[in-house]
Amino acid sequence: MRTVLVIGIGAGDPDHLTLQAVAALRRADVFFAIDKGSAKDDLLALRTLLLDRHVGPGAYRVVEAADPERDRDATGPGYREAVLDWQDRRAAVYAGMIDDELGPDGVGAFLVWGDPALYDGTLRLLAGIHDADVASGGQGFTIESVPGISSVAALAAAHRLILNRVGGSVLVTTGRRLAAGMPRDVDDVVVMLDGSTAFAALPDDDVDIYWGAYLGTPDEILVAGNLQKVKDDIVRRRAAARERKGWIMDTYLLRRDPGRR
Amino acid sequence: MRTVLVIGIGAGDPDHLTLQAVAALRRADVFFAIDKGSAKDDLLALRTLLLDRHVGPGAYRVVEAADPERDRDATGPGYREAVLDWQDRRAAVYAGMIDDELGPDGVGAFLVWGDPALYDGTLRLLAGIHDADVASGGQGFTIESVPGISSVAALAAAHRLILNRVGGSVLVTTGRRLAAGMPRDVDDVVVMLDGSTAFAALPDDDVDIYWGAYLGTPDEILVAGNLQKVKDDIVRRRAAARERKGWIMDTYLLRRDPGRR
Ligand SMILES: C[S@@+](CC[C@H](N)C(=O)[O-])C[C@H]1O[C@@H](n2cnc3c(N)ncnc32)[C@H](O)[C@@H]1O
Ligand SMILES: C[S@@+](CC[C@H](N)C(=O)[O-])C[C@H]1O[C@@H](n2cnc3c(N)ncnc32)[C@H](O)[C@@H]1O
Repeated sequence: MRTVLVIGIGAGDPDHLTLQAVAALRRADVFFAIDKGSAKDDLLALRTLLLDRHVGPGAYRVVEAADPERDRDATGPGYREAVLDWQDRRAAVYAGMIDDELGPDGVGAFLVWGDPALYDGTLRLLAGIHDADVASGGQGFTIESVPGISSVAALAAAHRLILNRVGGSVLVTTGRRLAAGMPRDVDDVVVMLDGSTAFAALPDDDVDIYWGAYLGTPDEILVAGNLQKVKDDIVRRRAAARERKGWIMDTYLLRRDPGRR
Repeated sequence: MRTVLVIGIGAGDPDHLTLQAVAALRRADVFFAIDKGSAKDDLLALRTLLLDRHVGPGAYRVVEAADPERDRDATGPGYREAVLDWQDRRAAVYAGMIDDELGPDGVGAFLVWGDPALYDGTLRLLAGIHDADVASGGQGFTIESVPGISSVAALAAAHRLILNRVGGSVLVTTGRRLAAGMPRDVDDVVVMLDGSTAFAALPDDDVDIYWGAYLGTPDEILVAGNLQKVKDDIVRRRAAARERKGWIMDTYLLRRDPGRR
């Protein structure tokens, strides 16, 4: 039986890797990679560093395919469709790599940023490919997921935060959804995938923000404080960093009624 | 300056440990432990295994204190008070250990189950002790948090789940809060700290459950399916496992409208 490993490699720090992930890297015969273009050079560099360090330079095989084009301008209901369509085309690329490169008992691996369980489509794509293969009379393959330190965990650690208050809930959401305002029923909200600094448009006076960019890397930037007081500073530093590096990844916690434990 | 490390050790699998956590274990002069009584023998066993494996048998020092009594029967508004009161008494125990055991440049460590950022009070207690120390003219200490694989990440990996749907949100909450029903605004809900099988009382027909107990350990149990169809099975297996081992830790995802991606 063929096996495909989805290995969470942590959110930027090479030492976020778990011992389980190290063992998984050593099990794989081939690593599948999707080339996302020059903006993601730092991410490719982390993958190479991890493989050199834990498998050995020259001791592993990487197969790379080009990422299909994606309509990044879609908004509203079109957004979900655009993402799903892009994921379908990506699935065809993945299916081709698996068929071409994995022998009957081969082990392939995808290295995934952070934790495979958060805002990453790899597991969904693989499940779809597996199901389509079985539906057309194939054997499919075993999928294993290796958990990783997410950017949420990295953000919390960098700020020495507990995400929940005593007995309370935590919402993990996207910048797009936050644009509709702080949710009413939950006071601790982690926001990912916010390309448009949605926090800066919130009117709330009683919210603290704990913001982090390039978490776990030498470029890490942290800002924390009352949202209204620090938001301009974050917007400014975010734009400058993005300009300098060509890309940015940032995540933040919004905490309403921050005095409460 | 004294340093206190809060090290996430993962949710049960010794190989959940990150390389960063391994390095942190090796930095510590002394490990602080709270004795939670015989029900938690398996947890103590994991700590001992990790220290023996990564620091070396006999090469580390553990200082143990008894956990203060906690009012576990409090409900409603009394619940939060009971937790906070117990945490205050616990803080006094921690403060005593830090003062007695840490020299001026000493490094102490607390090993924390899962990720220190989720439903664990250690960071809050330490921040309080630090602030009180500084307020009374002391030097305080540096607190560092080392992220770990949470039971949420372990649950997702065991079921090969992505917790969010495309562009969607995820709520992490407690059994107590779930007792009020599935939240309206979010369709993917992770539930922790549910001692009373709150899922079994939900009327929802359009919800799948992905349940896991003793995740990452040899005793791991996984059940998944439509909530109404599998809930009795989970309740039964949960009770039997708890009876056999004397304690249980379980976590689950509730997913409304499961056909949607
Ligand atoms: C496509 S999602 C992948 C998330 C990833 N699976 C995880 O567990 O962190 C990308 C988003 O994750 C967040 N992110 C990932 N790595 C980050 C880092 N090092 N610093 C800050 N945010 C990060 C950002 O919000 C970014 O928009
Ligand atoms: C006090 S909280 C600590 C959570 C921990 N800090 C984490 O990140 O997972 C304890 C709760 O975590 C969940 N939990 C922890 N370890 C678990 C495991 N191995 N299997 C299932 N649930 C677990 C259960 O819901 C349990 O009630």
